[in-house]
Amino acid sequence: MKALVFDGNLHLAELPIPVRKQGDVLIRIVKAGICNTDHEIVAGYMPGFTGVLGHEFIGVIEKADDKKFIGKRATAEINCGCGTCDYCKSGMERHCPHRTVIGIQGRDGAFAEYISVPAENAVVIPDSIPDLSAVFIEPLAAALEIKDQVPLENTKVLLVGDGKLGILIAHVLSTIQCETTVVGHHPETLNRIRKPGAAAIVSDEFQKTKFDVVIEASGNPDAFQLAVECTKPRGTLVLKSTFALSITFNPSPLVVNEITMVGSRCGRFSEAIRFLEMFKPDFSWMIAKEFGIKDGMEAFEYSKKAGILKVLLKM
Amino acid sequence: MKALVFDGNLHLAELPIPVRKQGDVLIRIVKAGICNTDHEIVAGYMPGFTGVLGHEFIGVIEKADDKKFIGKRATAEINCGCGTCDYCKSGMERHCPHRTVIGIQGRDGAFAEYISVPAENAVVIPDSIPDLSAVFIEPLAAALEIKDQVPLENTKVLLVGDGKLGILIAHVLSTIQCETTVVGHHPETLNRIRKPGAAAIVSDEFQKTKFDVVIEASGNPDAFQLAVECTKPRGTLVLKSTFALSITFNPSPLVVNEITMVGSRCGRFSEAIRFLEMFKPDFSWMIAKEFGIKDGMEAFEYSKKAGILKVLLKM
Repeated sequence: MKALVFDGNLHLAELPIPVRKQGDVLIRIVKAGICNTDHEIVAGYMPGFTGVLGHEFIGVIEKADDKKFIGKRATAEINCGCGTCDYCKSGMERHCPHRTVIGIQGRDGAFAEYISVPAENAVVIPDSIPDLSAVFIEPLAAALEIKDQVPLENTKVLLVGDGKLGILIAHVLSTIQCETTVVGHHPETLNRIRKPGAAAIVSDEFQKTKFDVVIEASGNPDAFQLAVECTKPRGTLVLKSTFALSITFNPSPLVVNEITMVGSRCGRFSEAIRFLEMFKPDFSWMIAKEFGIKDGMEAFEYSKKAGILKVLLKM
Repeated sequence: MKALVFDGNLHLAELPIPVRKQGDVLIRIVKAGICNTDHEIVAGYMPGFTGVLGHEFIGVIEKADDKKFIGKRATAEINCGCGTCDYCKSGMERHCPHRTVIGIQGRDGAFAEYISVPAENAVVIPDSIPDLSAVFIEPLAAALEIKDQVPLENTKVLLVGDGKLGILIAHVLSTIQCETTVVGHHPETLNRIRKPGAAAIVSDEFQKTKFDVVIEASGNPDAFQLAVECTKPRGTLVLKSTFALSITFNPSPLVVNEITMVGSRCGRFSEAIRFLEMFKPDFSWMIAKEFGIKDGMEAFEYSKKAGILKVLLKM
């Protein structure tokens, strides 16, 4: 099968179809999305990782221990816990210290024609959710994670970043009773974000003011300082971006203003599916282009361009 | 009167005794403590500040609108709020955006023979608290602030730092049902901290492991990385140190491990007084030396030396 493999460099490779182990399901991948994390990995964010990249995908289960899953449309929770530690036992396999992570850590990913994943990670996609919404389940779960961690009802929220994750977060915020302002670089995107109920401002025109909650989802280390400055005393700053690079900053304003900074990563797929079923958001406009897996390298380059939102690989 | 003035440089100056305004009390200062924040201000931490330095002190009220306060032993809450903003109205004048701060921001401090402060900031010290405990009210309030912000009961806590603030925090932790480990550089101090019920480890011998709550109170930017590494996924990292310098770090571990980082600064003096009355801790061993105000410059240099804890000025 064709696959995009990272081994210090990213390249298209011909690999054998993975052999399903007992307890796994084998999924024939239909579409996979390229995420900023993929670019960060190529830039050196996960020094230990080699293997097939990619962790946002939908496909069809072809092999499974339990035959009733065969033929079902599915995706998979990306964190594969050990199943025995305290985190796994409390439903937090996302933080299992022994975990592997699909396409990110110790486990092949989804930029390939097939993937084998633990059956407990496989998530069947309800028929009511179209493919072009289902490909957003993983990042939407990450967007929804914020409301699991931080009380947002009746707050003034600033969202920094109008990229792929920022747009999904804006959609989540539009379903919560809070006053949202989005600041970003892309007027067209901001116009669309404005519709689901947020003030949306191009960064040049943004007048710094204080917010109860600031969500940094720009993927741009330079935005961190703005996010700190706009968090009010005793307010909350949510960090969504992971970087390959370090940032330099003086933590004193966090201390003086007693700001709470909350790191936020993956969320539960079940929440994302519930959101898609309940609100039926249209994310299809975010899809910039689809490429065949054989043109995966081209897709990867294309997705790096400024202003390009979601790029899909189809198998 | 003699005073230690910072105007870009620290120097001993001869100033007029402040004229008490209506609403203020005039306090004749008896003792004042030198704090790391004073050193950070001299190093450039508060670029706008000029005036008399110092914010930890005890004295005697000599003039007041309400005559019953005259002759009382007192100290003062350091944050002087505007009294009208939302923060002030909710008892959070510590975060008033228009505040002045004694010896730190827009207001003369306590390294002088007299200070005039708003009457509502003056705090009368109960007779049961000896002078050499009362001089610790301000930093002890800052130590107590942590338990106001973060649930500590039944947690595993790592305290990084065995300096002045670290010792006070260790005392606070010893009164809470939590399992405390202190890591520091000073074996003698650590031996004393061990007594109030904490494991205490010299940093060379510390084996990194994960804690529910990590409190960074070392005043050393290099300790920040250790603090992050020792905070378990979904755990809490409390930042107590303010620095003149920036630190360089990669925030990704905070995001991946969904760590909550809580900035923590000043606390309520009433809490510190209650603590001193209830637990009667002996902090007098922390006092390294007392200097007359006329030797203030020497006192300042002395307090910079490694391993020196609290240096007092007496007026």
